[in-house]
Amino acid sequence: VSLIEPLTADLLATHPELADLPTPALVLHGPRVRHNIQQLADYAANVGIGIRPHTKTHKSREIARLQLDAGAIGITVAKISEAETISDPGEDVLLAYPPIGVRRAERLAHLAHDRTMRAAVDSLTAIEQVSAAARAAGSTIGLLVDFDIGLGRTGVQSAQETLELARAIDCAANVRLDGMMIYPGQVGSLPTEQADELKVIDSLVAEALDLWAKHGLAVTIISGGSTPTAYQSHFITHQTEIRPGTYLFNDMNYVRGGYCTLDDCAARVLATVISTARTGHIVLDAGSKTLAADRPSSPPDVGYGHIVEYPEAHIIRLNEEHGQADIRDCPRVPKVGDRVTVIPNHICPCVNLRDSIWWWDPGDSLRKIPVDARGRIE
Amino acid sequence: VSLIEPLTADLLATHPELADLPTPALVLHGPRVRHNIQQLADYAANVGIGIRPHTKTHKSREIARLQLDAGAIGITVAKISEAETISDPGEDVLLAYPPIGVRRAERLAHLAHDRTMRAAVDSLTAIEQVSAAARAAGSTIGLLVDFDIGLGRTGVQSAQETLELARAIDCAANVRLDGMMIYPGQVGSLPTEQADELKVIDSLVAEALDLWAKHGLAVTIISGGSTPTAYQSHFITHQTEIRPGTYLFNDMNYVRGGYCTLDDCAARVLATVISTARTGHIVLDAGSKTLAADRPSSPPDVGYGHIVEYPEAHIIRLNEEHGQADIRDCPRVPKVGDRVTVIPNHICPCVNLRDSIWWWDPGDSLRKIPVDARGRIE
Repeated sequence: VSLIEPLTADLLATHPELADLPTPALVLHGPRVRHNIQQLADYAANVGIGIRPHTKTHKSREIARLQLDAGAIGITVAKISEAETISDPGEDVLLAYPPIGVRRAERLAHLAHDRTMRAAVDSLTAIEQVSAAARAAGSTIGLLVDFDIGLGRTGVQSAQETLELARAIDCAANVRLDGMMIYPGQVGSLPTEQADELKVIDSLVAEALDLWAKHGLAVTIISGGSTPTAYQSHFITHQTEIRPGTYLFNDMNYVRGGYCTLDDCAARVLATVISTARTGHIVLDAGSKTLAADRPSSPPDVGYGHIVEYPEAHIIRLNEEHGQADIRDCPRVPKVGDRVTVIPNHICPCVNLRDSIWWWDPGDSLRKIPVDARGRIE
Repeated sequence: VSLIEPLTADLLATHPELADLPTPALVLHGPRVRHNIQQLADYAANVGIGIRPHTKTHKSREIARLQLDAGAIGITVAKISEAETISDPGEDVLLAYPPIGVRRAERLAHLAHDRTMRAAVDSLTAIEQVSAAARAAGSTIGLLVDFDIGLGRTGVQSAQETLELARAIDCAANVRLDGMMIYPGQVGSLPTEQADELKVIDSLVAEALDLWAKHGLAVTIISGGSTPTAYQSHFITHQTEIRPGTYLFNDMNYVRGGYCTLDDCAARVLATVISTARTGHIVLDAGSKTLAADRPSSPPDVGYGHIVEYPEAHIIRLNEEHGQADIRDCPRVPKVGDRVTVIPNHICPCVNLRDSIWWWDPGDSLRKIPVDARGRIE
């Protein structure tokens, strides 16, 4: 079985261990996952940038270890409960999320006793809460100033505001000014556009860092995004690390965005056709509780995921346990009981819907690995 | 605290046990849940129809028991793994879903050893698989013919086709022809429209049953939907039972559809404001991994859920852990660290995202109850 051979019905037929899996099942093509991890590791080593993978995509300790073994400098999480579940003592963990709330700050400070904990902040409140919690716990937390460079989600809005937070961190007890966090989630998809946009972002970062330097503030970490921009990371010259999440699995949003091909998609949902009663339509046993209800992240709205064996089909409607596909454009039609594989629009919430996923090394083994941090939202 | 008092920030302030809950948390207003269950039970008793609640909404053994204690005649599930988790020996369970796949049929037949198991079918394949599994297990399974009366999802398309399946069931071993299943998921929201549409559906059912009777097939169960049509169930005179799911919690889809009021919404997500860095916007710690990514089920697309304390706000974007709200129309603005309560668009997938939910009897107790069948998709 070739490294890039897709997980098709034909392939399934030759692997009885898959043909017998209860559906719907999420199957990882092991060689493809390893390839995706290594390919980005090679690029990052080549351009001299660290990878701090966002573990939200897989929520798995085992897969995080694969990324660390491939040279990742640490891991990223969004919620403190993910850090508690995914990370080990001695590791370097970035909470790329405002640690707001007394309980959240306390748990962050507690973890900092035996591992390097960092968090991104965009308010004085966050700095105060983290500092107070770290003082009470007797630990130290590294902070990054969250700078909004265009997405408009979290992050302060100007270089001047980054300076104010950087100075506040510098003055607060039991926290350490580690650097700046950006997330270029708004950047377009064409490589040439990306390069131009990333250069603009780089100059915004430079402006802020110059201001910091004028006030005697030197930092070591500039943490950036993202799977779509991963292979263009060298255009943000100040970046020291990137936080891609989806790159090791990929999904239809990234195929349609032009960031990867179908063959790059390592995570696929094995589903069964449960109804063909209505002509021109089929119903799969994979609905929004299996695939997640995410529509395509960019137009056109072609429905929910891609059926590998029936590429002309459109999954036009998801109910909780029903995936309804229009197959009128398909030259052949499946029958009740047939199995198909679906690449979801957005793989991260799809993984988060289940307790375990199947790691498949074709011709070798199929084994269940736990989604350790599934549902860890606090 | 009044039965219908909404779960507001003011109410939270007087209840320290809630104010200290880690967020995001899903809180059930216990008295309101009980009220919603009892209100429909009273209606159903009044019009002489059974309630077989769809447990997909709560996936909780404890809450299923509440419904049974209020007179439910049995429960509904979509997946066999839900039945395995939610139901007890001696109960009456309808799998309102095609039991396609050898493993699924085997598990169904196994459960039928110590409880009444029924399933809906819309293909000869389903009948053959269930019959074979039940023969092998030495059990008997009741089957309902799934008749599509307009939604266009599962179900055969004509009275004649229902007859063919009913006769096939009648001839197959170890299965029993129990009746017919319909799901009026396409019915409009105005009560007068509903009455007219439900009467048309009733005549479709009557036509099929007449055909069955002419072939000597008599049945006892005509199982229908749904929360939106629940209080109009008497217009389908042939119906013996209904399968509403959401009615005990309600959500914004049902508020906007005109089926209930905000006060009827018993399940709310307690969330924290984690960023106000961008003027006119706030970010909550509740994203698509908390609220689910379901957009409104009918136009206009007003975003993801409703913030009770800031009714003019619009949750315009959900990332996995970020809920971004536009608050430019709000007369007052929250600050970082404030807590708000969100009523989701669609409560069923929201419940399914977590291992436990909080049952709150204001002034009395707050306790965690497990979402037993969370993630049971097989």
